[in-house]
Amino acid sequence: MNPIDRLSEMFEHFPGIGPRQARRFVQYLLSAPQSTRAQLADTVSKLGQETLQCKRCYRWFTKTEARQKENQMLCPICADERREHSLFVVEKDADLEQVERAGFRGVYFVLGGTIPLASEEPHKHVRLKALVARVEGDATDKKLQELILGLSATAEGDHTRQYLVETLESFAQKFNFKITSLGRGLSTGSELEYADPDTIQNALSSRH
Amino acid sequence: MNPIDRLSEMFEHFPGIGPRQARRFVQYLLSAPQSTRAQLADTVSKLGQETLQCKRCYRWFTKTEARQKENQMLCPICADERREHSLFVVEKDADLEQVERAGFRGVYFVLGGTIPLASEEPHKHVRLKALVARVEGDATDKKLQELILGLSATAEGDHTRQYLVETLESFAQKFNFKITSLGRGLSTGSELEYADPDTIQNALSSRH
Amino acid sequence: MNPIDRLSEMFEHFPGIGPRQARRFVQYLLSAPQSTRAQLADTVSKLGQETLQCKRCYRWFTKTEARQKENQMLCPICADERREHSLFVVEKDADLEQVERAGFRGVYFVLGGTIPLASEEPHKHVRLKALVARVEGDATDKKLQELILGLSATAEGDHTRQYLVETLESFAQKFNFKITSLGRGLSTGSELEYADPDTIQNALSSRH
Amino acid sequence: MNPIDRLSEMFEHFPGIGPRQARRFVQYLLSAPQSTRAQLADTVSKLGQETLQCKRCYRWFTKTEARQKENQMLCPICADERREHSLFVVEKDADLEQVERAGFRGVYFVLGGTIPLASEEPHKHVRLKALVARVEGDATDKKLQELILGLSATAEGDHTRQYLVETLESFAQKFNFKITSLGRGLSTGSELEYADPDTIQNALSSRH
Repeated sequence: MNPIDRLSEMFEHFPGIGPRQARRFVQYLLSAPQSTRAQLADTVSKLGQETLQCKRCYRWFTKTEARQKENQMLCPICADERREHSLFVVEKDADLEQVERAGFRGVYFVLGGTIPLASEEPHKHVRLKALVARVEGDATDKKLQELILGLSATAEGDHTRQYLVETLESFAQKFNFKITSLGRGLSTGSELEYADPDTIQNALSSRH
Repeated sequence: MNPIDRLSEMFEHFPGIGPRQARRFVQYLLSAPQSTRAQLADTVSKLGQETLQCKRCYRWFTKTEARQKENQMLCPICADERREHSLFVVEKDADLEQVERAGFRGVYFVLGGTIPLASEEPHKHVRLKALVARVEGDATDKKLQELILGLSATAEGDHTRQYLVETLESFAQKFNFKITSLGRGLSTGSELEYADPDTIQNALSSRH
Repeated sequence: MNPIDRLSEMFEHFPGIGPRQARRFVQYLLSAPQSTRAQLADTVSKLGQETLQCKRCYRWFTKTEARQKENQMLCPICADERREHSLFVVEKDADLEQVERAGFRGVYFVLGGTIPLASEEPHKHVRLKALVARVEGDATDKKLQELILGLSATAEGDHTRQYLVETLESFAQKFNFKITSLGRGLSTGSELEYADPDTIQNALSSRH
Repeated sequence: MNPIDRLSEMFEHFPGIGPRQARRFVQYLLSAPQSTRAQLADTVSKLGQETLQCKRCYRWFTKTEARQKENQMLCPICADERREHSLFVVEKDADLEQVERAGFRGVYFVLGGTIPLASEEPHKHVRLKALVARVEGDATDKKLQELILGLSATAEGDHTRQYLVETLESFAQKFNFKITSLGRGLSTGSELEYADPDTIQNALSSRH
């Protein structure tokens, strides 16, 4: 395959990109100066060497931000002693960034996805073993007061949450921490008239 | 103005209808048989005679469904003795229908709108006096355990809710009922990545 | 059925209106003063008496604008002697209004729809007989220089256009008038990159 | 800046990509195997060496497809002797691909953009000198029968077209070739009711 088609095909694997936009990306790069292409290629190829996946929360971060702690290279959030002892489980890095932006002051664990409804091998879809180890470790160190399950408000998110609750509730009892889920209800800006019955029921259950 | 333009203008006052769709409505009626127009005209003109606004909840309903109770003509919901003693305040009839569909088993009060942020005359925008009277009446009859404020999750909805809380909290203390608001959080189907910080904060506050 | 549901169902027959918006229309009318409802009912019921369908072009117009001409009540456009002798065939009244707005100075015929692709009875879908009579009449009176077929640029529009061309070409030869179709090509505001191959081919064919 | 933010910023320069999607691209690359990143980097960095900009039409193509002709490296279309002698001027490579897909059998010139309405230096925005040279060369070689201006149907496209017509009409007279523009009118799939007056006027002017 020629380099134009090959590059176009690579861009088609990018999230949310179809064949037409992939081609526009290639055109953009063709018209750009060689230095722009060189810089992009350089940054992409060095991405692996300059970033680390945190051994505690599994998010990706820049190596220069890494801090040595107990013989592990941790991300700035996991290394920060002032963080509260609530562990927020998210599906992916982008969710973590949103929660951080909302002002959460605890710590995180990036699950790496959700468990499909029919899956018989949940551990193939999410970091189950790593989560259990993290929970056990934090709990043993008395660093876990609450486990917040921040899954999507979808069927697959709910399924994953239930699976995690079942998997972790014995730990919760043994180590005396709470397992909670994000509140459901009216999202900011929404009106009752356009809310679905499920959301109204949730908003009623979580009224306060 | 000719009848085509006049009718078009009337349809432009219908909620969500612009000039183009208003004209399409007129074209539809022009092409329809005379009997269709006659039926529509008849139903519209009799609407006032065949419907009643409930004296308790202020929603509109069909006269034939009305039930006499304590010398008042009430709607089927307000007349139903088996309804629970939670009073759900909604902005408009369409909201009431959505909440009813979601399976709520208490009773309602239709406020008739929201209070604009800068308004110095709140009572001109919503049925304040009627609400106060209803709350006092129900409370005196020991028929009010909880007042649920089901306003929109918008700035104006929040403003209205605060105003109602301030107005009614002395009654709540005197008659010993709770004032609650609908839970905020992730609405069904939503994902963390696309949630706004405000919704994430609410979902965190109402975690359970 | 109660009047609220009945009226709601009538509004659901309006073009582009679903159950939810139909209900909002009813709520709007319920909350409106009785005089608004009375006026709407009155205008709708009188619509038939106050409007006429033009005997030449078949569009709907207000009776007060009608002009007597050759023993017929005609619409202002058909009655206007200064109009040019081009006959523009449109599908519906709304199309006629758009063409008029674009500054066309000839006359019109409202076909009343398009002919479905598989239809074996084209005359049941559009005013074929009336169109033939109109064309023959205008041609005999030497008032037809060009017949412009202004159908939609869709499969059904194309099918209808071909059917009309076949039906009318013997008249065109006999009476010496042209049959033309609207030009196809790039619509105002469109870019080549996003145009479909068919539109590009048309734009190429009609280049000038 | 750290590599994650730096790469994110680079992706924000891609056409149609905002900060959020740029970050998702970075996340996708972080989670991808190192080999995927290496391949992408490699393809991007070699893009310049493996592609050529055609000296005749200025589009980008793969070096391996290049053909030597009259001491020039040409793209397969420009090198193809069987192509007709119509020269189609497009704004950008993506337009050329669309026109090629629509079955055009002539040759092309990629202008490289459009001329802003207020610009006093048109040659800074498009390849004016190269176009004039190309036109003169083809005309001298008796290889130019028609110059088709395939600009966007927008204000800036129209402005550019007029500028090109004024610049090139003396050549057209001297060398006896036509300058044409793409036909305007209803695009495939569109309906009269929703067409703007300008499009209807164009469709009327180009009726046939």
